Amino acid sequence: MGQNAIKEPVITLSAGPVAAYQQVLLGMARPVHYDFDPYFQAFYEQVVGKVTRALRAPQPALLMHAEPAVGLEAAAASLIGPDDVVLNLASGVYGKGFGYWSARYHKDMVEIEVPYNEAIDPQQVKDAFKRRPDIRVVSVVHHDTPSGTLNPVNEIGKIVRDNDALLLVDAVSSFGGMDVHPEDCCADIFVTGPGKCLGGAPGITIMAMSERAWAHIADNPKAPKASILSLGDWKDAWHRDKPFPFTPSVAEVNGLDAVMDLYFAEGPETVWRRHGLTAKACRAGVKALGLSLWAAREEIASPTTTAVRVPAGLRDDDILAAARSGFGVVLSAGRSETKGKLLRIGHMGPVAEPIYAVVAVTALGGALRKLGFKCDVGAGVEAAMSVIAAAQN
Amino acid sequence: MGQNAIKEPVITLSAGPVAAYQQVLLGMARPVHYDFDPYFQAFYEQVVGKVTRALRAPQPALLMHAEPAVGLEAAAASLIGPDDVVLNLASGVYGKGFGYWSARYHKDMVEIEVPYNEAIDPQQVKDAFKRRPDIRVVSVVHHDTPSGTLNPVNEIGKIVRDNDALLLVDAVSSFGGMDVHPEDCCADIFVTGPGKCLGGAPGITIMAMSERAWAHIADNPKAPKASILSLGDWKDAWHRDKPFPFTPSVAEVNGLDAVMDLYFAEGPETVWRRHGLTAKACRAGVKALGLSLWAAREEIASPTTTAVRVPAGLRDDDILAAARSGFGVVLSAGRSETKGKLLRIGHMGPVAEPIYAVVAVTALGGALRKLGFKCDVGAGVEAAMSVIAAAQN
Amino acid sequence: MGQNAIKEPVITLSAGPVAAYQQVLLGMARPVHYDFDPYFQAFYEQVVGKVTRALRAPQPALLMHAEPAVGLEAAAASLIGPDDVVLNLASGVYGKGFGYWSARYHKDMVEIEVPYNEAIDPQQVKDAFKRRPDIRVVSVVHHDTPSGTLNPVNEIGKIVRDNDALLLVDAVSSFGGMDVHPEDCCADIFVTGPGKCLGGAPGITIMAMSERAWAHIADNPKAPKASILSLGDWKDAWHRDKPFPFTPSVAEVNGLDAVMDLYFAEGPETVWRRHGLTAKACRAGVKALGLSLWAAREEIASPTTTAVRVPAGLRDDDILAAARSGFGVVLSAGRSETKGKLLRIGHMGPVAEPIYAVVAVTALGGALRKLGFKCDVGAGVEAAMSVIAAAQN
Amino acid sequence: MGQNAIKEPVITLSAGPVAAYQQVLLGMARPVHYDFDPYFQAFYEQVVGKVTRALRAPQPALLMHAEPAVGLEAAAASLIGPDDVVLNLASGVYGKGFGYWSARYHKDMVEIEVPYNEAIDPQQVKDAFKRRPDIRVVSVVHHDTPSGTLNPVNEIGKIVRDNDALLLVDAVSSFGGMDVHPEDCCADIFVTGPGKCLGGAPGITIMAMSERAWAHIADNPKAPKASILSLGDWKDAWHRDKPFPFTPSVAEVNGLDAVMDLYFAEGPETVWRRHGLTAKACRAGVKALGLSLWAAREEIASPTTTAVRVPAGLRDDDILAAARSGFGVVLSAGRSETKGKLLRIGHMGPVAEPIYAVVAVTALGGALRKLGFKCDVGAGVEAAMSVIAAAQN
Repeated sequence: MGQNAIKEPVITLSAGPVAAYQQVLLGMARPVHYDFDPYFQAFYEQVVGKVTRALRAPQPALLMHAEPAVGLEAAAASLIGPDDVVLNLASGVYGKGFGYWSARYHKDMVEIEVPYNEAIDPQQVKDAFKRRPDIRVVSVVHHDTPSGTLNPVNEIGKIVRDNDALLLVDAVSSFGGMDVHPEDCCADIFVTGPGKCLGGAPGITIMAMSERAWAHIADNPKAPKASILSLGDWKDAWHRDKPFPFTPSVAEVNGLDAVMDLYFAEGPETVWRRHGLTAKACRAGVKALGLSLWAAREEIASPTTTAVRVPAGLRDDDILAAARSGFGVVLSAGRSETKGKLLRIGHMGPVAEPIYAVVAVTALGGALRKLGFKCDVGAGVEAAMSVIAAAQN
Repeated sequence: MGQNAIKEPVITLSAGPVAAYQQVLLGMARPVHYDFDPYFQAFYEQVVGKVTRALRAPQPALLMHAEPAVGLEAAAASLIGPDDVVLNLASGVYGKGFGYWSARYHKDMVEIEVPYNEAIDPQQVKDAFKRRPDIRVVSVVHHDTPSGTLNPVNEIGKIVRDNDALLLVDAVSSFGGMDVHPEDCCADIFVTGPGKCLGGAPGITIMAMSERAWAHIADNPKAPKASILSLGDWKDAWHRDKPFPFTPSVAEVNGLDAVMDLYFAEGPETVWRRHGLTAKACRAGVKALGLSLWAAREEIASPTTTAVRVPAGLRDDDILAAARSGFGVVLSAGRSETKGKLLRIGHMGPVAEPIYAVVAVTALGGALRKLGFKCDVGAGVEAAMSVIAAAQN
Repeated sequence: MGQNAIKEPVITLSAGPVAAYQQVLLGMARPVHYDFDPYFQAFYEQVVGKVTRALRAPQPALLMHAEPAVGLEAAAASLIGPDDVVLNLASGVYGKGFGYWSARYHKDMVEIEVPYNEAIDPQQVKDAFKRRPDIRVVSVVHHDTPSGTLNPVNEIGKIVRDNDALLLVDAVSSFGGMDVHPEDCCADIFVTGPGKCLGGAPGITIMAMSERAWAHIADNPKAPKASILSLGDWKDAWHRDKPFPFTPSVAEVNGLDAVMDLYFAEGPETVWRRHGLTAKACRAGVKALGLSLWAAREEIASPTTTAVRVPAGLRDDDILAAARSGFGVVLSAGRSETKGKLLRIGHMGPVAEPIYAVVAVTALGGALRKLGFKCDVGAGVEAAMSVIAAAQN
Repeated sequence: MGQNAIKEPVITLSAGPVAAYQQVLLGMARPVHYDFDPYFQAFYEQVVGKVTRALRAPQPALLMHAEPAVGLEAAAASLIGPDDVVLNLASGVYGKGFGYWSARYHKDMVEIEVPYNEAIDPQQVKDAFKRRPDIRVVSVVHHDTPSGTLNPVNEIGKIVRDNDALLLVDAVSSFGGMDVHPEDCCADIFVTGPGKCLGGAPGITIMAMSERAWAHIADNPKAPKASILSLGDWKDAWHRDKPFPFTPSVAEVNGLDAVMDLYFAEGPETVWRRHGLTAKACRAGVKALGLSLWAAREEIASPTTTAVRVPAGLRDDDILAAARSGFGVVLSAGRSETKGKLLRIGHMGPVAEPIYAVVAVTALGGALRKLGFKCDVGAGVEAAMSVIAAAQN
């Protein structure tokens, strides 16, 4: 603190890690307890109980003690065996990326890839099963964050279940910001974390696991053991009488407890509503600035992130830098294939409040204008405000 | 908070995770910044700089975003290639355990194993190189926490370097509590973390890497990439202009910054001195209680953990439970092979203060007495106090 | 932080301000809200409700936004009018001191003074009323902290009520550490604060007020208004619909909320029990060191502070300094008349745990020994442990 | 936490208490140390040193342990003696109010009162001294918060000094947000606090005292002693070797230390600049909404608070409630005489950032529109943005 020559941001509207709720930050400052002490063991069981309830899951939630990308890698490593045919659904960078992890373990992979501003059509999944009834595992990203787009996981999940395959859903940046739950999408492994819509810190993974998933892992001869990539190591760790295989990230668990308390105190439906409204207001404002949404159709635009096309002739990094220096507002660029093509405004956790749609439109508009792009910021703000006003009547 | 029926501990004297310094807890409550924001990127570089300075290392320190056991697993996965012959030095549970990770990657392994209350003799290492000049990688645990014993890493390191092999040192529970540094022990990979002697939280790994280690990893065709097990992914991440391959655990980095500031503010030598004095006082007290130290010789007893033999006829868990319920004091049991045979008293971070030696002796003595073991707690305390008093003159 | 050349204490066993609970410290770090915002107004009403419940009081508690000595001064200024005859009960420095405040406002004062290691005898109060039936206000300190002694406030209160006078009780350093409540002692103004036995910070005053007290204040023509010394200014401020007369100390209120939650979560009876046990163990230990308690009789020794006579030939400050430098343990000296004559060991809040009796005995014994006073620390610790062990059977 | 049925605010733009910086909140969560412990005594001296440096004062700053209104009351009580003629300068509610405090102590008072949207003209002060050369004490509010207007204290101060009178300056809500310092305005008592522009909590008072002020207090036979209203009690308390007369508010001192570190780390000039720019942008935006500033002339509008006339036909509370419910944005109403006539937008501490001018304009405009007042929010935002953009070139 102090020696950093760069000014701290004023408002962070990133696609994650996101600004955390104050109560969560203070949760992370609770005492670090010894993981074998009965107080901590009972506490851990309680936290898992809260997470399970938030997931609306029938089985105890699974916590993995690293950020959700690790949870996903571990899920791939543990679930996908050398005899498994995998159907990978790629509507964005993260969906595509899962295929590379899968490739380390599977026998064969079928991939459905759509343009990265599009969503997977459930019919494509049906068709894939018809062509390849030997598909055992399906992987889908609910909200492909680098695109800001959603896939219809509930419909896809039903098809997967009907075909008796296992479904892995990456809901890292959607859970907590909208109505998505493992049972509703028939997920066998459902991966999320506190560092996005739940407004917590990013260093821990939340998973919902089905009995089918655990059975498949138990049958996988190559499933890692005594490894950070092993889900099985942690299967029973939620229980206060079972030891931890490795040291849990105590402070992250402390923070997660606070995350869950906040989520229930506000009420999930209320939380989702403000995410949705903020995104809707933001999209209206961005369009009124004269910009185009990245998503091919507004129905697949995520309520937790708004992706906007970079106007022709401008560089994404210049726009971000101008918003940052002019207003102290942090926005996100794209990643990999979407880098340079779009900008992202996060609506997650504490900034999933309509006033931040105005902040985003202003900072983005001001930045564009500074770079010579003509846009009507007043009109952008008015458009956002119309959405907000309409929601109150 | 609140619903936990078990009373929170009063004083935690565990072998880790340990009680964290208040300033570190508050450090973990600093804002969660977006990892691509220039403020965070500059901050991360600064933190790595501080860690590097604490390690007295010539190369930028490496941070891995999970607890140190993951750092060790990743080190094995990244460093040990299919052509490597490994010499594994096992003087305890953790030393032995590294061999299992090594076995996933190495061509062949030579192991020197000594009783778990003993230390590796450097001469044994010399001899091993004579018998097997093809040894490429040597692994040693400095402080094998489940035994509370130290290995002579500086002497071992010299031999390894003379034989042109690479040395991996697990200094997780010694660094920060005594004078051990990667250059002094010729470590090519030196692994530690903030959650032990540095009085921080356990969810992040600190590593010092030599150029030779990086080169060996670069040459390892099986070194993981795009994985939590890949050191290489993070090689350049310390630099503010380089992107993070995955999301860093922002809150853990925030806490680590506070850890480092405290360490320098107090002065490393001062920190080590109080660890050493606390352990010495504790050993004196424990012996005066009529108990035996686990370590074969007091010279190899760690200044950061005191391991004590469980008296005949008593169960370790009963003793821990009695100390916990009678005094609110948390002690540690053994692990794996040492479980049931010894108890451990941690002297790490904020409780590495001589008064806590008295607390430990009292709680342990009181617990034993409650279980029918006769011991002179007054004598134990007096013995500890003699050590403390002597140190002040 | 950092530039302070003096080492931070390891363990604070002062008579207050005391070490605060971690949850309270984190409570103080909650957002500072605007005092006219409806959220804060409702929150304030809730906090007052919790405090009222803790006090077991029929009227809403009164918060004054400065430390309890200010609360006491304001109580004197508001309650005592120019026609009032005051009976001041002085068994220590604080009791005596209240008389000086009273003198600014009263018509006449009767004072009963006993040696500062003694307690007021209720019969003396009865007698005073016989001699002076015109006494209107009686003032008594429950625990006169500079002496570590208790007065029998319940008996005294009954007499005062029978004589139709008003009673002001200073319970600053007893409430929260033992069973004392305004209704039980017929207090009309009962003053305490979070910074002692409740383990909070010292910057706010808690009061219970009777209707009779409010009526007397309303009738007092000299009662301050628009002043920090006016209780009346704040009479209705607890209600969410009433404005604050001045700015409340928002962070102290935040901390107080956490204090109350902890108190109820643990259960008052449990909290009192550990205060009492710690003090009892401490007294046993101190006596076994060969020292004398300050209190004339152990029955009047407070469960929240143990006062010990300074042995002949030694200086109090030297003893404190030796405990501080040798063990990092903070103890308290006396104040005013008791300064130089006694030392005090606080048993308040988080350190009201039996293990800290051992810490106190050790640090005190070690300090004395360093100064040449012969004492058997082992015996002291054993005596404390006997008390602790007996309490568990 | 949790039971409060009212939603926590999203963004607080009040005139104080204001949202505190996160580092300050965490500062308030540092350990509560015993006030007689040498660590705390040295720490307190350091904090006073930092405050003194921030004030650019030649004498050690004075801390009073309650909110600044108490500091002002104590200043009146301590400074103004029974022989003193006071000149009270009243350009607003707070200036007028000081006269009531003065009346408790002075011999006679001269008052210059101007309309509450105006400022005191230095010529008026000169004239007053001509008419009444016996004026001994002058009181002025720099920023009369309920009006959002500034008085020319530097000019006034010079006149007072030339007339050999003493000057008391209330700079509670201006210091830290603009260039005002006791020496520059010849203040003998200069009162401020951390809970406004410095972004701290409101429970402590900062004062700069001249030697002349201390001498006058020493000569005042009625100056309080042993009282919260006594400045003299605390005169030497800054020194580590001097005891505290009463218990300092330890947590507030901890927070103040963090406040000062932040202020210096950012640089006072930088802090003032963003306060000024935010206010300027806000004023432009508010005017473009079709509203009138309260201040008679923009030159006297404070850079730390923008006061806006309530449009005819609307009620202030309705507007605040609409901004709060529609956007989660907290604004302030007027106080006493200005209540109902104006609204206030605070630009203090962490929200003294230009983007919050946009937030304020949007929330205010949206609220007005909801109540049927026609206004062009887009134009308001554009006007604010023009100011921001101009400042960057």
